[in-house]
Amino acid sequence: MDMIIKNGSVVTASETVKADVMISDGKIIAIGSNLPTAGITVVDAKGKLVLPGAIDVHTHLAMPFGGTTSADSYLAGTRAAACGGVTTVFDYPMQRKGMTIKEVIDSKKAICAKEACVDYAYHCIITDLNDGAILEEMASAVESGITSFKCFFVYKKEGMMVDDGTFARLLLKAKEVGAMINLHAENPDLIDYNIETFLAEGKTSAWYHYLSRPEYVEAEADKRAVHWAKHLQAPLYLVHMADKEGLEAAIEARKEHSDIYIETCPQYLEFTCDVYKREDGRNFVCSPPMKGQESQDALWKAIKNGEIDVVATDHCPFQSYEKDWGIDDFTKIPNGCAGVENLYPYMLSAANQGKISFNRAIELCSTNPAKIFGCANKGSIAVGKDADIVIYDPDIDFTITVDKMHSDYDHTIWEGIQLKGYPIQTYSRGRLVYDHGDFIGEPGWGQFVKREKR
Amino acid sequence: MDMIIKNGSVVTASETVKADVMISDGKIIAIGSNLPTAGITVVDAKGKLVLPGAIDVHTHLAMPFGGTTSADSYLAGTRAAACGGVTTVFDYPMQRKGMTIKEVIDSKKAICAKEACVDYAYHCIITDLNDGAILEEMASAVESGITSFKCFFVYKKEGMMVDDGTFARLLLKAKEVGAMINLHAENPDLIDYNIETFLAEGKTSAWYHYLSRPEYVEAEADKRAVHWAKHLQAPLYLVHMADKEGLEAAIEARKEHSDIYIETCPQYLEFTCDVYKREDGRNFVCSPPMKGQESQDALWKAIKNGEIDVVATDHCPFQSYEKDWGIDDFTKIPNGCAGVENLYPYMLSAANQGKISFNRAIELCSTNPAKIFGCANKGSIAVGKDADIVIYDPDIDFTITVDKMHSDYDHTIWEGIQLKGYPIQTYSRGRLVYDHGDFIGEPGWGQFVKREKR
Amino acid sequence: MDMIIKNGSVVTASETVKADVMISDGKIIAIGSNLPTAGITVVDAKGKLVLPGAIDVHTHLAMPFGGTTSADSYLAGTRAAACGGVTTVFDYPMQRKGMTIKEVIDSKKAICAKEACVDYAYHCIITDLNDGAILEEMASAVESGITSFKCFFVYKKEGMMVDDGTFARLLLKAKEVGAMINLHAENPDLIDYNIETFLAEGKTSAWYHYLSRPEYVEAEADKRAVHWAKHLQAPLYLVHMADKEGLEAAIEARKEHSDIYIETCPQYLEFTCDVYKREDGRNFVCSPPMKGQESQDALWKAIKNGEIDVVATDHCPFQSYEKDWGIDDFTKIPNGCAGVENLYPYMLSAANQGKISFNRAIELCSTNPAKIFGCANKGSIAVGKDADIVIYDPDIDFTITVDKMHSDYDHTIWEGIQLKGYPIQTYSRGRLVYDHGDFIGEPGWGQFVKREKR
Amino acid sequence: MDMIIKNGSVVTASETVKADVMISDGKIIAIGSNLPTAGITVVDAKGKLVLPGAIDVHTHLAMPFGGTTSADSYLAGTRAAACGGVTTVFDYPMQRKGMTIKEVIDSKKAICAKEACVDYAYHCIITDLNDGAILEEMASAVESGITSFKCFFVYKKEGMMVDDGTFARLLLKAKEVGAMINLHAENPDLIDYNIETFLAEGKTSAWYHYLSRPEYVEAEADKRAVHWAKHLQAPLYLVHMADKEGLEAAIEARKEHSDIYIETCPQYLEFTCDVYKREDGRNFVCSPPMKGQESQDALWKAIKNGEIDVVATDHCPFQSYEKDWGIDDFTKIPNGCAGVENLYPYMLSAANQGKISFNRAIELCSTNPAKIFGCANKGSIAVGKDADIVIYDPDIDFTITVDKMHSDYDHTIWEGIQLKGYPIQTYSRGRLVYDHGDFIGEPGWGQFVKREKR
Repeated sequence: MDMIIKNGSVVTASETVKADVMISDGKIIAIGSNLPTAGITVVDAKGKLVLPGAIDVHTHLAMPFGGTTSADSYLAGTRAAACGGVTTVFDYPMQRKGMTIKEVIDSKKAICAKEACVDYAYHCIITDLNDGAILEEMASAVESGITSFKCFFVYKKEGMMVDDGTFARLLLKAKEVGAMINLHAENPDLIDYNIETFLAEGKTSAWYHYLSRPEYVEAEADKRAVHWAKHLQAPLYLVHMADKEGLEAAIEARKEHSDIYIETCPQYLEFTCDVYKREDGRNFVCSPPMKGQESQDALWKAIKNGEIDVVATDHCPFQSYEKDWGIDDFTKIPNGCAGVENLYPYMLSAANQGKISFNRAIELCSTNPAKIFGCANKGSIAVGKDADIVIYDPDIDFTITVDKMHSDYDHTIWEGIQLKGYPIQTYSRGRLVYDHGDFIGEPGWGQFVKREKR
Repeated sequence: MDMIIKNGSVVTASETVKADVMISDGKIIAIGSNLPTAGITVVDAKGKLVLPGAIDVHTHLAMPFGGTTSADSYLAGTRAAACGGVTTVFDYPMQRKGMTIKEVIDSKKAICAKEACVDYAYHCIITDLNDGAILEEMASAVESGITSFKCFFVYKKEGMMVDDGTFARLLLKAKEVGAMINLHAENPDLIDYNIETFLAEGKTSAWYHYLSRPEYVEAEADKRAVHWAKHLQAPLYLVHMADKEGLEAAIEARKEHSDIYIETCPQYLEFTCDVYKREDGRNFVCSPPMKGQESQDALWKAIKNGEIDVVATDHCPFQSYEKDWGIDDFTKIPNGCAGVENLYPYMLSAANQGKISFNRAIELCSTNPAKIFGCANKGSIAVGKDADIVIYDPDIDFTITVDKMHSDYDHTIWEGIQLKGYPIQTYSRGRLVYDHGDFIGEPGWGQFVKREKR
Repeated sequence: MDMIIKNGSVVTASETVKADVMISDGKIIAIGSNLPTAGITVVDAKGKLVLPGAIDVHTHLAMPFGGTTSADSYLAGTRAAACGGVTTVFDYPMQRKGMTIKEVIDSKKAICAKEACVDYAYHCIITDLNDGAILEEMASAVESGITSFKCFFVYKKEGMMVDDGTFARLLLKAKEVGAMINLHAENPDLIDYNIETFLAEGKTSAWYHYLSRPEYVEAEADKRAVHWAKHLQAPLYLVHMADKEGLEAAIEARKEHSDIYIETCPQYLEFTCDVYKREDGRNFVCSPPMKGQESQDALWKAIKNGEIDVVATDHCPFQSYEKDWGIDDFTKIPNGCAGVENLYPYMLSAANQGKISFNRAIELCSTNPAKIFGCANKGSIAVGKDADIVIYDPDIDFTITVDKMHSDYDHTIWEGIQLKGYPIQTYSRGRLVYDHGDFIGEPGWGQFVKREKR
Repeated sequence: MDMIIKNGSVVTASETVKADVMISDGKIIAIGSNLPTAGITVVDAKGKLVLPGAIDVHTHLAMPFGGTTSADSYLAGTRAAACGGVTTVFDYPMQRKGMTIKEVIDSKKAICAKEACVDYAYHCIITDLNDGAILEEMASAVESGITSFKCFFVYKKEGMMVDDGTFARLLLKAKEVGAMINLHAENPDLIDYNIETFLAEGKTSAWYHYLSRPEYVEAEADKRAVHWAKHLQAPLYLVHMADKEGLEAAIEARKEHSDIYIETCPQYLEFTCDVYKREDGRNFVCSPPMKGQESQDALWKAIKNGEIDVVATDHCPFQSYEKDWGIDDFTKIPNGCAGVENLYPYMLSAANQGKISFNRAIELCSTNPAKIFGCANKGSIAVGKDADIVIYDPDIDFTITVDKMHSDYDHTIWEGIQLKGYPIQTYSRGRLVYDHGDFIGEPGWGQFVKREKR
């Protein structure tokens, strides 16, 4: 199955060059000018960009949450990923009191072995240390390729929150064993207080979802998290950063401790809290919520200045009927929105329109995620890497609509968004899995990505 | 009992003038040059400074804590206050689950009515909202002259901590009713984690008291508190600030919300954490502990720059035998040190040696406390104010030793500290209560200070 | 001529008390309750505020500038001062190449001896070091009571600018001899470049006065000045601060070197650059020009936060026909506006409307100027101070109009501004010089204020 | 002359991969695994790193300065460059009043055509606008490949300084025509003042070279430059940043205006001002001088954090006898030191010892310089780029000594510095020019690099 992609512009995080890319056994084996084509499949990428597949390091597939389960199964979610140019998906399985990391991961591996259409990896959410047993288990988890763990500073009532002491223990243990802690930062006490107040006042629309967890509620938790990371000198990865004050605190802390990483999501770059005033505002409900224009401007500035490291999706769609549960009470809306199929097209469209460079888009969506999370064979068009490749046509005009998407959800917050340019082919380890609008991969093709420790 | 203090230098927060001070019925009735002396008592203050009595807004008298009770009764504590030039003492009675504010205050008033040697006021510590009843009661408490309430962000295991939601409720209610919240800021989870670690490693000396709650552990809580105050636009008073990072965050936040006030204590200005390495380190154990030189330098800079508002003592002495409980385990040392008698002499000595101006010392120890906490008749040598007056001799060399102190404790962290200048007389509402080393007042003289709301 | 002001509220920078003020021989000799009135003049100030006279530390009287002379003579300017509650006026005589400080000051003293209606002091503008002779002369100037000197970072073509080396020499010499350097901070090169560009493009309206010296042009010079002061650890007083970025840099630098002082003027607090779009925009032309709303907001915030030390006027009016010279060319408009009579009423009106406290207004307009510039007998209602007193009626509604003013100018930028409260009497060393709208003082009454060195 | 470099580790700014590099006609034509070797020259790089040649964007060759000429001719300087792995050298020819840019550049091109051993480019120093003619000429200069121009904020007496207005004109014109302004930032007035003071006091050793232009003297000019760049929104490149305060101001300004670039030099990373206390301190005299440890720490932190963009050398050596001119008067020491041959080995040694990554070293010394200054064919090991390649042996221990260097100077500040790893071969457009210690290139081989505009 040797193959060559000819005549395209090969884009990496640092360069754009006209070159052919030769693939053999699922690996990139050469990049060059006028490479020989005899006896192998030739893909003509003239006028196209040849990009590394994106790595969406933040998804929640088949996740039990808010009284239901997120709408995309591992099959549907990874199928959508393939069709959006995402060739590696990170899922967030959740540990609960009494469960080991291994149990959590193994159960998910069993599912993915059958369903995954692209490669996959796991961060494991930790909610309870099991009297310290989890800390003990982390080293072996890292050996098995699970090198990142997530905590919540929120969802206190739901029993998912860790307190600051547990967080410190996890930070220090992660540092010791070569892993990293990811954090969802919002303050539960203020959220609960705000919710209580709003409900008592009969304020129940989606707008109050935002007002119950506005900028300062996220910012406090961001600031607390980076404070601990800086002073304990432990690596920290902040997921879905959405507010200016927290962002600036993280950037500032990084001056003293460079091992802090910041992720944001396309929804925070595209939408502001104003969406919650819309009649269909509930469909945009996710946590943290979209924030004000000032925060969005700060996020874009940080995107441009190289201060944000990763863009990922927090993909966690729910069906319309589920979202409707909260028509009269925003606290009943399942939190989460679709995104995995939109990530790369959205960021590449921004590049295509000059907002950032293509190199930067690739750094954010592929190269940095691979480096930060230890995916040695992913993240770039380079000799020896997996042939996870996207052929991108910069001249296509594409309008997102749920009908063109490849998930199982029935609506999308991205409906009607217009993009300039779109992926036309996705290769997963050299195999074509998406071609001009159609998924042509297969469940079970995806492999577990065993990651390197830090 | 009309009286005149002649020939002294009258010092206020903003001026120093040569003038006589005339007193009648416990009030200052005139300040002038060559006021008439016929028929009244004349005090000659030639070569002396005439100062407003200090207001120590942070003491813990007869306080149950750490398995015992602080060594100074209301009688002993206020007697010592009088002898240190402190004419108003604020105590911190503690509410517990099920108790109303009124119950807490009334029980203390009953004691003070008999024991207090100088005037007194109360901040009420709130540990439990009693399902909201405390919030309801705050307005009437304010009407009764209790206009400040304290929370702990620490002492979680002891059931004294409030969470962020409770803190927010208190901040907002205080703002509504014209009161202020005081806060003790340290992070309990990190302290507990550190203690657990140290004890497991056999690290039990007083030095580990410091290491279990070092700079960053206080700083986090400082930062969190000012974050809420700033965003909720509610008044906040940070007690016993001892670390640089928290201090700077408070100063920074104040740019956006001026209603934040900062208190520090003489022990943080004089000692660093190095004292915990001493053989008698346990005697210096208080919370927050003394910090490193960098923090002390920052505190002095803020003292000089006008960024710290108040110096008060956190007076909470324990006897030597009680401190000895922790010889082999720092967690068993009752937390707290003596200070009420040393506050004013210490700060005035700093002024006398040129570190700050006398005006600034008076602002920190008297004028600001009176303004911030609504003591309309206190805090300055001005017409109409209570004749709470200290005659200060700038030429005395004084070495602190426990034998010269007027408390009930049997040792002091201030032992051996040398001061330049010392109070020679203290007048409480015109009555001489301290005279050249001797307490000559009487228990029960002190009156409750009913404070004005903000 | 003994006198007593009874029943008023005496306001100082730190206190407000109900008290009588007794005056003898031009000095305040007592402040008290129910002081005896037998045999002396009694002024009833019931319902009124009794305030220290304002000190306008920034005026340009009879100043040759812009091809003419500022409209107010020393007589007219100090008459207007008296009627605005200003009891001490600082003028800015200018040294030129070859002139000694003494020559400059003596010539002005001769005029003031005859004309001054209130007390007066001088800052001397230095434009040339006379090969170092000026530096040599500074010590004796300080001995004679001239303890402050001003430099321009602007007016390069006019031969008035000092370069950074000269500035450094002056800063260091001032520090050595107990004086202070005042600075007018704008960058001449950028102004010249902008003017050249605008004139070439036919942009000649007053709006281009602003655009030729906008925020960043002032800010650069502010930042440079505080940089030198901070690193040379020399005192610096920034006159007429008008922009946010420079203001913030000064506040920041003060953290490391507290001997930096900031003055702003009422015109920057009341007007923004939008006035230059008005048909009569030329009348508002002064340097630095009014800036945008963001800067005005920053100035008010700093006023409230205690970060600005002084409000003074830069009083330098020109007649309408002179302003008209620049109808077709903004560079021909004499720079300067009226203000000395409006300063105190404006700031007190702000206090009266709750924007700041009366104490703060007095600190800004009287107490701080006196302290910063060494006027030992001025700046407060305190025993031993000169009886420079203003009786203020907080209930008067006053609309500024040129007809009510007591200067020689024929128009004012303050026309139509409405104030709440107004001075009804001004006493200069105990002599009534202004009474309910009328000037009743006399030229030559004013005395030179010999200032103390730092 | 086809050639293949096999078995090495190919390092770029973003990746390190095991790969072969194929070269044809001076270009890189393929990077791959097991590329065919039949009929072409094979270089075995097993165990070695294959790196892009460095680009030293800051040299002064044959430069008249300080009463003499810098010691390295274009031949010697570019020969030394080749031997240090530098394959492109930027020189700084100086325009003087009356000269056009074209004249300046053409005269240098004529020399380089004969002498240059590696490729070369020019920044043109502008000292006089020739009444605006220089501004007019800039567009055509850019078309001819001269896309950067340098100004001095120093050397005022020498007639090389531009004032702020000229600087602003150049910034804006550069922005307009797609060029960039480079700046040497120090403040001449303070330097002159300090020198005058020191010489008058008989302080003449090299230590006073440092004290006459210490941290704050550089910082002021840095701050001023970034102020103008930020507010005029024009590109700015700060050469040889050496102090912390200026560095931080530049980093801060970049948040608002990303088009600011920062260069530092190896000498500031290796030495502190303490070298000027050495007996041979004069040999280290360059401008700006080395600074204190705090500045060096800040530079390294910025190197690590990605906040410094480029490391280049300011190569400008003088002979010992010339340096000796200043034994008794530091102002007579020609300013400048050697460096072009040490740049890459020094930074790679830092990488080899783990201080930074090899990727980061390459970004600083090759990739960023190429991108920032428009060298489209330089700066990376990538298909289509010039085959400017260095083979680096990480296992060599190398001690710098003047005898091993390939310049014409007779001493070096780098004498005795020990490096881990060293280049063993340098290829310039595919031609071997340096081989295991020996220069084997030829004068005239180097070509002019016509750069792309921004």
